[in-house]
Amino acid sequence: SDTTLDVDRARRCGFPEVVYGEGKSAETIIEIFRKQQEHGDTSLATRIDAEKGAALKASLPDGIYHEKGRTFRMPTDQPTWGNVGLVTAGTSDLPVAEEARETLRWMGIEPVFIQDVGVAGPHRFGEQAHKLSDADAVIVVAGMEGALPSVAGGHLACPVIAVPTSVGYGASFQGVAALLGMLNSCASNVTVVNIDAGFKGAYLAGLISLRVLQAKSQPES
Amino acid sequence: SDTTLDVDRARRCGFPEVVYGEGKSAETIIEIFRKQQEHGDTSLATRIDAEKGAALKASLPDGIYHEKGRTFRMPTDQPTWGNVGLVTAGTSDLPVAEEARETLRWMGIEPVFIQDVGVAGPHRFGEQAHKLSDADAVIVVAGMEGALPSVAGGHLACPVIAVPTSVGYGASFQGVAALLGMLNSCASNVTVVNIDAGFKGAYLAGLISLRVLQAKSQPES
Amino acid sequence: SDTTLDVDRARRCGFPEVVYGEGKSAETIIEIFRKQQEHGDTSLATRIDAEKGAALKASLPDGIYHEKGRTFRMPTDQPTWGNVGLVTAGTSDLPVAEEARETLRWMGIEPVFIQDVGVAGPHRFGEQAHKLSDADAVIVVAGMEGALPSVAGGHLACPVIAVPTSVGYGASFQGVAALLGMLNSCASNVTVVNIDAGFKGAYLAGLISLRVLQAKSQPES
Amino acid sequence: SDTTLDVDRARRCGFPEVVYGEGKSAETIIEIFRKQQEHGDTSLATRIDAEKGAALKASLPDGIYHEKGRTFRMPTDQPTWGNVGLVTAGTSDLPVAEEARETLRWMGIEPVFIQDVGVAGPHRFGEQAHKLSDADAVIVVAGMEGALPSVAGGHLACPVIAVPTSVGYGASFQGVAALLGMLNSCASNVTVVNIDAGFKGAYLAGLISLRVLQAKSQPES
Amino acid sequence: SDTTLDVDRARRCGFPEVVYGEGKSAETIIEIFRKQQEHGDTSLATRIDAEKGAALKASLPDGIYHEKGRTFRMPTDQPTWGNVGLVTAGTSDLPVAEEARETLRWMGIEPVFIQDVGVAGPHRFGEQAHKLSDADAVIVVAGMEGALPSVAGGHLACPVIAVPTSVGYGASFQGVAALLGMLNSCASNVTVVNIDAGFKGAYLAGLISLRVLQAKSQPES
Amino acid sequence: SDTTLDVDRARRCGFPEVVYGEGKSAETIIEIFRKQQEHGDTSLATRIDAEKGAALKASLPDGIYHEKGRTFRMPTDQPTWGNVGLVTAGTSDLPVAEEARETLRWMGIEPVFIQDVGVAGPHRFGEQAHKLSDADAVIVVAGMEGALPSVAGGHLACPVIAVPTSVGYGASFQGVAALLGMLNSCASNVTVVNIDAGFKGAYLAGLISLRVLQAKSQPES
Amino acid sequence: SDTTLDVDRARRCGFPEVVYGEGKSAETIIEIFRKQQEHGDTSLATRIDAEKGAALKASLPDGIYHEKGRTFRMPTDQPTWGNVGLVTAGTSDLPVAEEARETLRWMGIEPVFIQDVGVAGPHRFGEQAHKLSDADAVIVVAGMEGALPSVAGGHLACPVIAVPTSVGYGASFQGVAALLGMLNSCASNVTVVNIDAGFKGAYLAGLISLRVLQAKSQPES
Amino acid sequence: SDTTLDVDRARRCGFPEVVYGEGKSAETIIEIFRKQQEHGDTSLATRIDAEKGAALKASLPDGIYHEKGRTFRMPTDQPTWGNVGLVTAGTSDLPVAEEARETLRWMGIEPVFIQDVGVAGPHRFGEQAHKLSDADAVIVVAGMEGALPSVAGGHLACPVIAVPTSVGYGASFQGVAALLGMLNSCASNVTVVNIDAGFKGAYLAGLISLRVLQAKSQPES
Ligand SMILES: Nc1ncnc2c1ncn2[C@@H]1O[C@H](COP(=O)(O)O)[C@@H](O)[C@H]1O
Ligand SMILES: Nc1ncnc2c1ncn2[C@@H]1O[C@H](COP(=O)(O)O)[C@@H](O)[C@H]1O
Ligand SMILES: Nc1ncnc2c1ncn2[C@@H]1O[C@H](COP(=O)(O)O)[C@@H](O)[C@H]1O
Ligand SMILES: Nc1ncnc2c1ncn2[C@@H]1O[C@H](COP(=O)(O)O)[C@@H](O)[C@H]1O
Ligand SMILES: [Mg+2]
Ligand SMILES: [Mg+2]
Ligand SMILES: [Mg+2]
Ligand SMILES: [Mg+2]
Ligand SMILES: [Mg+2]
Ligand SMILES: [Mg+2]
Ligand SMILES: [Mg+2]
Ligand SMILES: [Mg+2]
Repeated sequence: SDTTLDVDRARRCGFPEVVYGEGKSAETIIEIFRKQQEHGDTSLATRIDAEKGAALKASLPDGIYHEKGRTFRMPTDQPTWGNVGLVTAGTSDLPVAEEARETLRWMGIEPVFIQDVGVAGPHRFGEQAHKLSDADAVIVVAGMEGALPSVAGGHLACPVIAVPTSVGYGASFQGVAALLGMLNSCASNVTVVNIDAGFKGAYLAGLISLRVLQAKSQPES
Repeated sequence: SDTTLDVDRARRCGFPEVVYGEGKSAETIIEIFRKQQEHGDTSLATRIDAEKGAALKASLPDGIYHEKGRTFRMPTDQPTWGNVGLVTAGTSDLPVAEEARETLRWMGIEPVFIQDVGVAGPHRFGEQAHKLSDADAVIVVAGMEGALPSVAGGHLACPVIAVPTSVGYGASFQGVAALLGMLNSCASNVTVVNIDAGFKGAYLAGLISLRVLQAKSQPES
Repeated sequence: SDTTLDVDRARRCGFPEVVYGEGKSAETIIEIFRKQQEHGDTSLATRIDAEKGAALKASLPDGIYHEKGRTFRMPTDQPTWGNVGLVTAGTSDLPVAEEARETLRWMGIEPVFIQDVGVAGPHRFGEQAHKLSDADAVIVVAGMEGALPSVAGGHLACPVIAVPTSVGYGASFQGVAALLGMLNSCASNVTVVNIDAGFKGAYLAGLISLRVLQAKSQPES
Repeated sequence: SDTTLDVDRARRCGFPEVVYGEGKSAETIIEIFRKQQEHGDTSLATRIDAEKGAALKASLPDGIYHEKGRTFRMPTDQPTWGNVGLVTAGTSDLPVAEEARETLRWMGIEPVFIQDVGVAGPHRFGEQAHKLSDADAVIVVAGMEGALPSVAGGHLACPVIAVPTSVGYGASFQGVAALLGMLNSCASNVTVVNIDAGFKGAYLAGLISLRVLQAKSQPES
Repeated sequence: SDTTLDVDRARRCGFPEVVYGEGKSAETIIEIFRKQQEHGDTSLATRIDAEKGAALKASLPDGIYHEKGRTFRMPTDQPTWGNVGLVTAGTSDLPVAEEARETLRWMGIEPVFIQDVGVAGPHRFGEQAHKLSDADAVIVVAGMEGALPSVAGGHLACPVIAVPTSVGYGASFQGVAALLGMLNSCASNVTVVNIDAGFKGAYLAGLISLRVLQAKSQPES
Repeated sequence: SDTTLDVDRARRCGFPEVVYGEGKSAETIIEIFRKQQEHGDTSLATRIDAEKGAALKASLPDGIYHEKGRTFRMPTDQPTWGNVGLVTAGTSDLPVAEEARETLRWMGIEPVFIQDVGVAGPHRFGEQAHKLSDADAVIVVAGMEGALPSVAGGHLACPVIAVPTSVGYGASFQGVAALLGMLNSCASNVTVVNIDAGFKGAYLAGLISLRVLQAKSQPES
Repeated sequence: SDTTLDVDRARRCGFPEVVYGEGKSAETIIEIFRKQQEHGDTSLATRIDAEKGAALKASLPDGIYHEKGRTFRMPTDQPTWGNVGLVTAGTSDLPVAEEARETLRWMGIEPVFIQDVGVAGPHRFGEQAHKLSDADAVIVVAGMEGALPSVAGGHLACPVIAVPTSVGYGASFQGVAALLGMLNSCASNVTVVNIDAGFKGAYLAGLISLRVLQAKSQPES
Repeated sequence: SDTTLDVDRARRCGFPEVVYGEGKSAETIIEIFRKQQEHGDTSLATRIDAEKGAALKASLPDGIYHEKGRTFRMPTDQPTWGNVGLVTAGTSDLPVAEEARETLRWMGIEPVFIQDVGVAGPHRFGEQAHKLSDADAVIVVAGMEGALPSVAGGHLACPVIAVPTSVGYGASFQGVAALLGMLNSCASNVTVVNIDAGFKGAYLAGLISLRVLQAKSQPES
């Protein structure tokens, strides 16, 4: 086998290893999912194109393939939990947001989802910000100049996880402009993950919400 | 002499040549100002450090040196005119804004000036935006992620001239992050000049306001 | 729906929201155009490839698809107005210029159009510059070294809006060389928009011309 | 005054505005601190060099200047709270870590601090990782190749906030190598802030710990 | 002929010229292989896609085409020799590792091969490091943040030749993040070759092992 | 028409305008060639792919299409003249060299052509350098590290025009590494044109040789 | 000694080795000059600051130190020869132009020098271009957007050697904008040397003029 | 204490930890040296400026400070061993070469040192290459275009460790041009370390020579 699966990951880090699907064959991914099932772990693979998704679906018919988000995951029968917000600046950022949403669902979370509220219509975010007042963390997905996380950060008291997208053209340099904007945010509560890394933004937000959930059942002595 | 002064500039372009002071001796600048005076032109020099400013002041005692803006200009006795807004994101952007303000004054314009209303406190711009409702053009000066021009563009119907500043650290790359953000603005009415180019932002805004002024005295037939 | 249409944009900013077509389905775009029609707004979509253009044309048969400019817009029956110049450096810059021209037409403006007058034949621009003497703003579209806006700026008294194009090879870096050249223009009246942003260049020029038009009917008291 | 203080920030975002000291005079900073005191807010300024620190100390003798961390803050008499880890890869990363530690103290948190455990001696982090098992979030400060956050992320179940530093030479490009390494971390729980942004790393970690603390007193119903 | 084959290379440098297959026709490569055979030299070509590989195989039926590694080489009947380790961080790095392995085989070496032991599961490398204790040199192939060579360097006493791969997305910039990480390694025994240069990493490691082998038969006097 | 042909170019600059074929239709190019024929000018178009080449050939059957060099030119019946050298570092640099050779032929020059003498076999250039001793200028075409022009410059007394190519991978960045190497050449007689700019390298070399030719018939008085 | 002087350079390349003064002590430079004198060679050192210049002058009192150009050279009693033009875009480009002029003088050439004729006043170059009609090569020195070489190239029939300067600010990136502009020049006769490389521009121009001079005394048979 | 010394390094990696002196106080360095002495380890610190060097010398009078190489090390009384070559392209590369030489001496090796044999005088390296025929590894230090390692690689059969230096100006970008050139070397036996990393180049070469030495005393069975 070409893989050294990190089977101990769930114990050590809270969640099992997630498969980065790019450059892996469907066979390799199925093998990993099988090992995880034996181990009692849930499974998620990202960066799965339509063809690979179909191959996975054929072997693992219970699995859920998400076309826009390009993810494949095994369903859970656990109840949902968590308080996470997910916001996009524009309609074109949707694929990255869907990768994030599917990752949250794999963790068991259904986020509050607000779409297409970028800063060119600056009132749009403000009008819906109240829906995020309970969130433990908010993921903000934006391309072009990537200004929305700063504005969101200015409205919110929780961590804002900024996900730059490669949406844009010319001097957006496939998401570099958005990434730099977010790294230089003048809002203190903004942190950043890689360009188009919907998975990572969601994973972080989910982890934060998990700690809050655990704290609720472990009240301060 | 080391210069070929473009004495015809005012006729051709509306305003005389402005001196870029970096790397020019006080003597060279004084020589140019003298030629312009003979020609009946006004005079402005930018990028003048304190020492050079003192040397200019000694030879041209009527001249006005602005320390923060690092400009030197000859005063005019013309009445002020024009409708231009000038906005900064943070207090640290002030030197660039002052270069812009002195350039506007050299053109005869006193701008509406709004300071320190960056997006980390997103209500701040909105509360003062009404002061800009008459403006023919608004200059927005911002460093770090440079998000304010997009927000301003979303509020305003006139052209927004974005001036990125080198304020920031790390991945701001001396203003590159702000520059890229502004070039990728999702607001349609945002245009951009060079990093720290307060002069250019002001010159453009002044030109626009001048055309509007001229139009008022040339009513549509 | 995946969109939060900014229906208030025309009131706030003078013109309604323009659709960035990249990454949006024909269905989404048609939905937005319908909402804008209900609202009494005009409609323009940019970055529309031939296939999407055909789908839009099928649903909105009155719409005008421009193949070179990759735009789709609804026609107006308003008379044209405005004084805007549009200049290209080379024949290869035409697609970006057409995006600009269609944007101007959506605003109601038919520009003075001068083509293929780049600096390698330096007399070419000068010979036709007189056609631009009435312009409220001139858009200059250029790739490779992007020198034409500086030369145009040196001839003209109005704002010059430089649009760098990705035309070129090697160290042109898909328009970066032209962009940097334009940002560093030694002509004071040159401002810059994103690479290949014909839409933005036109929008700014149109806004400036609109203010001048409005001023003509509001003569100075 | 040159500032528009965001006095509402503590209510909206949990903590008052923090002063970015670069390019502000001691007078301006003192004025802001005074306003915050009147408002009942705590105060922190970052990027304060020794000279400015002395001027602040002279006017605000209760304030605490930290030379290595280049911060100035007003003390609180509140008890400390929170579970935050702070780790450095090398001794040269200390100034950035101290900015982080002072920010945490301003929030009321004394972090678990582990120093000089970079990956060239790969056992060093593992040997002390157990001290971080309770942490709500861990800040990892590293320059050069910035590999430590990935390793820490592989050991820990909580969010890891990576702070790249400008420590290094040559192709470290003042922290860019570390920044890119951290953004591309193969560990899922690593998020990133700007180069040398000890303040931001700490602020995020503190916010996370605050939510956990609040959850403990709001047990799940 | 379009080539000036360096037939003297084996005498001067220890091994004959290796053909860089990109942009060369199958005919050209066959011509070179023939000349090398006449000269008694072994032959290796890199960057050979499947189609070119088939053409080579048709003319040189003894040759070995490796699909993943994209190499074509003539077999030798010499016994294998040498002590070289070859390690990958993730499954996606396999193609580059296979180019390295085929290069080593062309030199006559069969490496110790350890796969998928990246730093997100930091115990994985340590558990297998003992297999490399005899190695004269170890090649470490890694994409994304490229942290594994530093960790390997911290465990090993021999030279570590780091091969960055273009595996990753967004701010990995096709391997630049990994390359920079490796160049800035805080481990002293890490040296670097070009992105995806499995051939070069292997060639260097093989050369080192050859010198050690030669020394064994030339004991110190 | 979309073109403003610079018909005066041959008088002003010595040779008529050359057509940059990228992004121009075959029709446009044919129209330009026709105008040049009427004017008595020769014609050359670069960056002509196979399909466009066929269309040109169909309309202009006397024209010469060069597949590797991607050029189309009208033949001349003038005798050849000039002393120009053309050297490549590797076989993969051939397409750029062929663009250069066809440009020279359009000027009337048949160069001395030396192939595949890159620095990895450092004796190769030296062995053939004597063939270039009469050259008025030598064009050196190289990719990867682009070291050959420096070595050539060290051997030769005439100007060396370095043409970097996009041959290479990884950190060659499509020719940037070669370009930077050539710009920083420690040989004093090396000058540089754009990446893959075989046309420009040839044009410059031809111009130099033309001046030398003209001087021979205008002996110093 | 720390140097391996290339004493054979004049025979091989036409002119002796020129000393790159940066990072060399005055002693080392004097030693080299002495060796060259013994060898009958002329001497030039570039990048000599005022202090090192004084030390050289003290030991070699016949030498000529040029403060602006930062060169030191030994005088010759040979008559001047050659036809070279030297043009600057702005007054701030003078130091680089002076390095070029002193290099030409060391070669024995006094150039036609035209200053401060940048494209913002586009008529300025045209008015003086006739002075360059005899030139064998023209050096054009320009910073900021570096557009002047393209315009000059459009007017002239001889090679134009473009020297980008680090004059400018912000997005000029210490001369990168000018360098890129020049590399992408749409004028066919423009070639480029390194940023601020007045020495190289001059050396190339001088070499070209030398070949023309030699041709005049070797009339075509 | 601010350090977690890796005292086990010599056992694990062959040589003890080397101190990176930048950003460390003399006190910290002395403390580390003392601990290493207690442990029976040798000591080396790099990046030590003159002032820090004097402070170290005062406390550790046996230590050897090297001004050009900016290193401080404790002497050994062991006999020298090893076969390593050290080559520079130009005199200005000397400081980096001295850092390498002092590192080799700390390891017990006195290298064969060849200076100032860069490619502008291409015969210079060839004339001295024979001195390197016994070398186990050769370090080549070069700035500007960094072409010398490729040429050396073409002459030699042993590994060539290329050390790019920040010598140069303009488009050398503080050593980036040399670094890229070396990474893209067409010579197969060239590997690269960080810009100005004399220490690393030497450490690698020393490690290789050590393995060869050990092999001599462990003849193949
Ligand atoms: N879309 C993604 N972006 C970044 N990391 C990912 C992604 N999907 C999975 N991973 C991580 O990639 C690692 C697996 O890499 P590999 O061994 O190549 O499958 C795991 O540690 C995952 O947590
Ligand atoms: N070291 C720092 N890094 C990044 N942001 C900061 C830093 N210190 C303060 N800030 C933020 O900068 C903003 C204040 O900017 P200004 O108006 O220029 O003082 C506030 O929103 C702070 O949260
Ligand atoms: N994959 C590769 N990466 C880098 N260099 C290579 C590769 N394959 C072959 N080479 C080298 O490229 C040179 C041949 O270049 P060429 O003349 O274009 O075939 C030889 O010196 C080889 O050592
Ligand atoms: N200003 C300069 N720019 C570029 N190369 C130069 C300069 N001055 C001298 N040189 C070249 O640098 C080489 C000398 O380098 P070095 O051995 O360091 O003195 C010679 O080949 C000169 O032709
Ligand atoms: Mg939208
Ligand atoms: Mg503020
Ligand atoms: Mg044209
Ligand atoms: Mg340490
Ligand atoms: Mg894996
Ligand atoms: Mg070859
Ligand atoms: Mg001037
Ligand atoms: Mg030298």
